[in-house]
Amino acid sequence: MSSTSRLLQLLLSARRSLDLCLFSFSHQQLARAVRILHRRGVRVRVVTDEQYMGLQGSQIGLLRQAGIQVRHDQDSGYMHHKFAIVDRRLLITGSLNWTASAIQSNRENLLVLEDTEYVKPFLDEFERIWEEYNPINYKFF
Amino acid sequence: MSSTSRLLQLLLSARRSLDLCLFSFSHQQLARAVRILHRRGVRVRVVTDEQYMGLQGSQIGLLRQAGIQVRHDQDSGYMHHKFAIVDRRLLITGSLNWTASAIQSNRENLLVLEDTEYVKPFLDEFERIWEEYNPINYKFF
Repeated sequence: MSSTSRLLQLLLSARRSLDLCLFSFSHQQLARAVRILHRRGVRVRVVTDEQYMGLQGSQIGLLRQAGIQVRHDQDSGYMHHKFAIVDRRLLITGSLNWTASAIQSNRENLLVLEDTEYVKPFLDEFERIWEEYNPINYKFF
Repeated sequence: MSSTSRLLQLLLSARRSLDLCLFSFSHQQLARAVRILHRRGVRVRVVTDEQYMGLQGSQIGLLRQAGIQVRHDQDSGYMHHKFAIVDRRLLITGSLNWTASAIQSNRENLLVLEDTEYVKPFLDEFERIWEEYNPINYKFF
Protein backbone atom coordinates (compact mmCIF):
# COMPACT_ATOMS: atom_id res chain seq x y z
CA MET A 1 0.00 0.00 0.00
CA SER A 2 1.34 3.45 -0.84
CA SER A 3 1.96 5.94 1.94
CA THR A 4 -0.81 8.16 0.57
CA SER A 5 -3.32 5.31 0.71
CA ARG A 6 -2.21 4.43 4.22
CA LEU A 7 -2.53 8.07 5.34
CA LEU A 8 -5.95 8.37 3.68
CA GLN A 9 -7.11 5.18 5.39
CA LEU A 10 -6.01 6.44 8.80
CA LEU A 11 -7.71 9.82 8.28
CA LEU A 12 -10.93 8.27 7.02
CA SER A 13 -11.09 6.09 10.13
CA ALA A 14 -12.02 9.22 12.13
CA ARG A 15 -15.44 8.95 13.75
CA ARG A 16 -15.62 11.94 16.10
CA SER A 17 -12.74 14.37 15.53
CA LEU A 18 -9.77 15.23 13.37
CA ASP A 19 -7.24 17.80 14.55
CA LEU A 20 -4.78 18.89 11.88
CA CYS A 21 -1.68 20.95 12.62
CA LEU A 22 -0.02 21.42 9.25
CA PHE A 23 2.69 23.81 8.10
CA SER A 24 1.70 23.32 4.48
CA PHE A 25 -1.35 21.60 3.02
CA SER A 26 -1.60 21.43 -0.77
CA HIS A 27 -2.28 17.72 -1.34
CA GLN A 28 -5.64 17.57 -3.15
CA GLN A 29 -6.57 13.99 -2.34
CA LEU A 30 -5.86 14.41 1.36
CA ALA A 31 -7.82 17.69 1.42
CA ARG A 32 -10.74 15.92 -0.25
CA ALA A 33 -10.70 13.28 2.50
CA VAL A 34 -10.78 16.04 5.12
CA ARG A 35 -13.81 17.64 3.46
CA ILE A 36 -15.56 14.24 3.34
CA LEU A 37 -15.01 13.82 7.08
CA HIS A 38 -16.41 17.29 7.72
CA ARG A 39 -19.52 16.42 5.69
CA ARG A 40 -19.89 13.19 7.67
CA GLY A 41 -20.14 15.25 10.85
CA VAL A 42 -16.63 14.61 12.16
CA ARG A 43 -15.39 17.70 14.05
CA VAL A 44 -12.48 18.93 11.95
CA ARG A 45 -10.13 21.66 13.21
CA VAL A 46 -7.14 22.91 11.23
CA VAL A 47 -4.15 24.94 12.40
CA THR A 48 -1.75 26.14 9.74
CA ASP A 49 1.05 28.56 8.92
CA GLU A 50 0.12 32.08 7.87
CA GLN A 51 2.88 32.46 5.28
CA TYR A 52 2.18 29.12 3.60
CA MET A 53 -1.62 29.04 3.62
CA GLY A 54 -1.86 31.57 0.78
CA LEU A 55 0.65 29.93 -1.54
CA GLN A 56 -0.45 28.60 -4.90
CA GLY A 57 -2.00 25.16 -4.59
CA SER A 58 -2.77 25.53 -0.89
CA GLN A 59 -5.98 23.70 0.05
CA ILE A 60 -6.69 25.91 3.06
CA GLY A 61 -9.06 28.24 1.19
CA LEU A 62 -11.13 25.29 -0.05
CA LEU A 63 -11.33 23.85 3.45
CA ARG A 64 -12.59 27.20 4.74
CA GLN A 65 -15.13 27.41 1.92
CA ALA A 66 -16.38 23.99 2.94
CA GLY A 67 -17.09 25.39 6.39
CA ILE A 68 -14.13 23.87 8.19
CA GLN A 69 -12.61 25.91 11.03
CA VAL A 70 -9.05 27.00 10.28
CA ARG A 71 -6.75 29.04 12.52
CA HIS A 72 -3.26 30.33 11.81
CA ASP A 73 -0.34 32.04 13.52
CA GLN A 74 0.51 35.71 13.30
CA ASP A 75 4.27 35.34 13.81
CA SER A 76 7.21 35.72 11.51
CA GLY A 77 8.30 32.24 12.63
CA TYR A 78 6.73 29.17 11.07
CA MET A 79 3.97 27.01 12.49
CA HIS A 80 6.13 24.11 11.38
CA HIS A 81 4.32 21.13 12.90
CA LYS A 82 3.01 18.43 10.56
CA PHE A 83 0.75 16.23 12.61
CA ALA A 84 -2.79 14.92 12.72
CA ILE A 85 -4.74 13.50 15.63
CA VAL A 86 -7.64 11.17 14.87
CA ASP A 87 -10.39 10.82 17.50
CA ARG A 88 -7.98 12.23 20.13
CA ARG A 89 -6.20 8.85 20.30
CA LEU A 90 -4.18 8.28 17.12
CA LEU A 91 -1.22 10.54 16.32
CA ILE A 92 0.25 10.79 12.81
CA THR A 93 3.43 12.88 12.78
CA GLY A 94 6.77 13.14 11.02
CA SER A 95 8.84 15.11 8.55
CA LEU A 96 6.20 14.98 5.82
CA ASN A 97 4.47 18.15 4.69
CA TRP A 98 1.08 17.35 3.15
CA THR A 99 2.07 18.35 -0.38
CA ALA A 100 2.19 16.33 -3.58
CA SER A 101 5.89 17.07 -4.14
CA ALA A 102 6.87 15.89 -0.66
CA ILE A 103 4.94 12.64 -1.06
CA GLN A 104 6.21 12.02 -4.58
CA SER A 105 9.81 13.24 -4.52
CA ASN A 106 11.22 13.45 -1.01
CA ARG A 107 12.76 11.10 1.49
CA GLU A 108 10.31 11.44 4.42
CA ASN A 109 9.07 9.73 7.55
CA LEU A 110 5.68 9.39 9.18
CA LEU A 111 5.10 7.89 12.61
CA VAL A 112 1.76 6.52 13.76
CA LEU A 113 1.48 6.41 17.54
CA GLU A 114 -1.37 5.41 19.85
CA ASP A 115 0.38 5.42 23.24
CA THR A 116 -1.09 8.15 25.48
CA GLU A 117 2.46 9.00 26.58
CA TYR A 118 3.18 10.28 23.06
CA VAL A 119 -0.29 11.40 21.96
CA LYS A 120 -1.05 13.54 25.03
CA PRO A 121 1.72 16.16 24.53
CA PHE A 122 0.58 16.64 20.92
CA LEU A 123 -3.08 16.94 21.99
CA ASP A 124 -2.04 19.52 24.59
CA GLU A 125 0.06 21.41 22.04
CA PHE A 126 -2.89 21.40 19.63
CA GLU A 127 -5.29 22.83 22.23
CA ARG A 128 -2.68 25.43 23.27
CA ILE A 129 -2.17 26.55 19.66
CA TRP A 130 -5.91 26.44 18.94
CA GLU A 131 -6.54 28.92 21.77
CA GLU A 132 -3.48 31.04 21.02
CA TYR A 133 -4.53 31.41 17.37
CA ASN A 134 -8.14 32.21 18.22
CA PRO A 135 -9.18 35.07 15.89
CA ILE A 136 -10.24 37.17 18.88
CA ASN A 137 -6.50 37.36 19.68
CA TYR A 138 -5.45 38.51 16.19
CA LYS A 139 -3.80 41.89 16.05
CA PHE A 140 -4.68 43.97 13.02
CA PHE A 141 -2.74 47.14 13.73
CA MET B 1 15.60 23.10 30.52
CA SER B 2 15.52 24.57 27.00
CA SER B 3 14.95 22.26 24.05
CA THR B 4 18.47 22.97 22.81
CA SER B 5 19.98 21.94 26.16
CA ARG B 6 17.85 18.80 26.19
CA LEU B 7 18.86 17.92 22.63
CA LEU B 8 22.54 18.58 23.42
CA GLN B 9 22.31 16.39 26.50
CA LEU B 10 20.78 13.52 24.53
CA LEU B 11 23.43 13.79 21.79
CA LEU B 12 26.31 13.98 24.25
CA SER B 13 25.08 10.81 25.92
CA ALA B 14 26.31 8.87 22.85
CA ARG B 15 29.02 6.34 23.71
CA ARG B 16 29.42 4.28 20.56
CA SER B 17 27.58 5.80 17.60
CA LEU B 18 25.59 8.76 16.36
CA ASP B 19 23.67 8.53 13.10
CA LEU B 20 22.33 11.85 11.83
CA CYS B 21 19.85 12.16 8.99
CA LEU B 22 19.27 15.89 8.62
CA PHE B 23 17.71 17.92 5.83
CA SER B 24 19.39 21.09 7.08
CA PHE B 25 22.11 21.50 9.70
CA SER B 26 23.22 25.03 10.49
CA HIS B 27 22.97 25.12 14.29
CA GLN B 28 26.50 25.91 15.54
CA GLN B 29 26.18 24.60 19.07
CA LEU B 30 24.68 21.28 17.95
CA ALA B 31 27.40 20.93 15.30
CA ARG B 32 30.05 21.58 17.96
CA ALA B 33 28.59 18.76 20.06
CA VAL B 34 28.78 16.43 17.06
CA ARG B 35 32.46 17.31 16.53
CA ILE B 36 33.17 16.68 20.22
CA LEU B 37 31.61 13.22 19.94
CA HIS B 38 33.72 12.49 16.86
CA ARG B 39 36.87 13.50 18.76
CA ARG B 40 35.83 11.24 21.65
CA GLY B 41 35.85 8.28 19.29
CA VAL B 42 32.08 7.96 18.83
CA ARG B 43 31.31 6.74 15.29
CA VAL B 44 29.47 9.65 13.69
CA ARG B 45 27.74 9.31 10.32
CA VAL B 46 25.80 12.12 8.67
CA VAL B 47 23.30 11.99 5.81
CA THR B 48 22.07 15.29 4.46
CA ASP B 49 20.36 17.03 1.57
CA GLU B 50 22.46 18.06 -1.41
CA GLN B 51 20.64 21.33 -2.08
CA TYR B 52 20.76 22.50 1.53
CA MET B 53 24.27 21.41 2.55
CA GLY B 54 25.88 24.26 0.60
CA LEU B 55 23.66 27.05 1.89
CA GLN B 56 25.15 29.85 3.94
CA GLY B 57 25.58 28.88 7.57
CA SER B 58 25.48 25.14 6.87
CA GLN B 59 27.70 23.23 9.28
CA ILE B 60 28.22 20.30 6.90
CA GLY B 61 31.56 21.62 5.54
CA LEU B 62 32.96 22.01 9.05
CA LEU B 63 31.87 18.48 9.95
CA ARG B 64 33.65 17.13 6.86
CA GLN B 65 36.77 19.16 7.68
CA ALA B 66 36.73 17.57 11.13
CA GLY B 67 36.94 14.17 9.45
CA ILE B 68 33.31 13.17 9.92
CA GLN B 69 31.76 11.03 7.18
CA VAL B 70 28.95 12.81 5.36
CA ARG B 71 26.84 11.46 2.52
CA HIS B 72 24.14 13.22 0.51
CA ASP B 73 21.47 12.52 -2.08
CA GLN B 74 21.75 13.24 -5.79
CA ASP B 75 18.05 13.76 -6.45
CA SER B 76 15.98 16.82 -7.18
CA GLY B 77 13.71 15.77 -4.29
CA TYR B 78 14.70 16.60 -0.74
CA MET B 79 16.33 14.31 1.81
CA HIS B 80 13.78 15.76 4.21
CA HIS B 81 14.25 13.57 7.31
CA LYS B 82 15.29 15.24 10.54
CA PHE B 83 16.29 12.48 12.90
CA ALA B 84 19.18 11.29 15.02
CA ILE B 85 19.88 7.86 16.44
CA VAL B 86 22.12 7.61 19.51
CA ASP B 87 23.91 4.30 20.12
CA ARG B 88 21.44 2.57 17.79
CA ARG B 89 18.80 2.63 20.55
CA LEU B 90 17.55 6.19 21.07
CA LEU B 91 15.63 7.96 18.32
CA ILE B 92 15.19 11.74 18.21
CA THR B 93 12.82 12.81 15.43
CA GLY B 94 10.24 15.45 14.62
CA SER B 95 9.47 18.54 12.60
CA LEU B 96 12.57 20.41 13.77
CA ASN B 97 15.33 21.26 11.33
CA TRP B 98 18.62 21.74 13.15
CA THR B 99 18.86 25.44 12.46
CA ALA B 100 18.98 28.40 14.85
CA SER B 101 15.90 30.02 13.31
CA ALA B 102 13.79 26.85 13.68
CA ILE B 103 14.79 26.46 17.32
CA GLN B 104 14.29 30.15 18.13
CA SER B 105 11.28 31.19 16.07
CA ASN B 106 9.17 28.23 14.98
CA ARG B 107 6.47 26.08 16.49
CA GLU B 108 8.11 22.62 16.33
CA ASN B 109 8.01 19.14 17.83
CA LEU B 110 10.65 16.61 18.74
CA LEU B 111 9.93 13.06 19.82
CA VAL B 112 12.37 10.93 21.80
CA LEU B 113 11.69 7.22 21.42
CA GLU B 114 13.47 4.15 22.72
CA ASP B 115 11.02 1.39 21.80
CA THR B 116 12.57 -0.96 19.23
CA GLU B 117 9.25 -0.98 17.37
CA TYR B 118 9.80 2.69 16.48
CA VAL B 119 13.61 2.88 16.42
CA LYS B 120 14.16 -0.11 14.11
CA PRO B 121 12.43 1.33 11.00
CA PHE B 122 14.50 4.51 11.35
CA LEU B 123 17.72 2.50 11.80
CA ASP B 124 16.83 0.48 8.69
CA GLU B 125 16.04 3.65 6.73
CA PHE B 126 19.37 5.15 7.83
CA GLU B 127 21.35 2.10 6.67
CA ARG B 128 19.39 2.02 3.39
CA ILE B 129 20.11 5.70 2.71
CA TRP B 130 23.74 5.35 3.84
CA GLU B 131 24.33 2.65 1.21
CA GLU B 132 22.25 4.37 -1.47
CA TYR B 133 24.22 7.61 -1.03
CA ASN B 134 27.60 5.86 -1.03
CA PRO B 135 29.93 8.04 -3.16
CA ILE B 136 30.73 5.04 -5.37
CA ASN B 137 27.14 5.31 -6.58
CA TYR B 138 27.34 9.02 -7.42
CA LYS B 139 26.72 9.88 -11.04
CA PHE B 140 28.90 12.69 -12.36
CA PHE B 141 27.79 12.78 -15.99
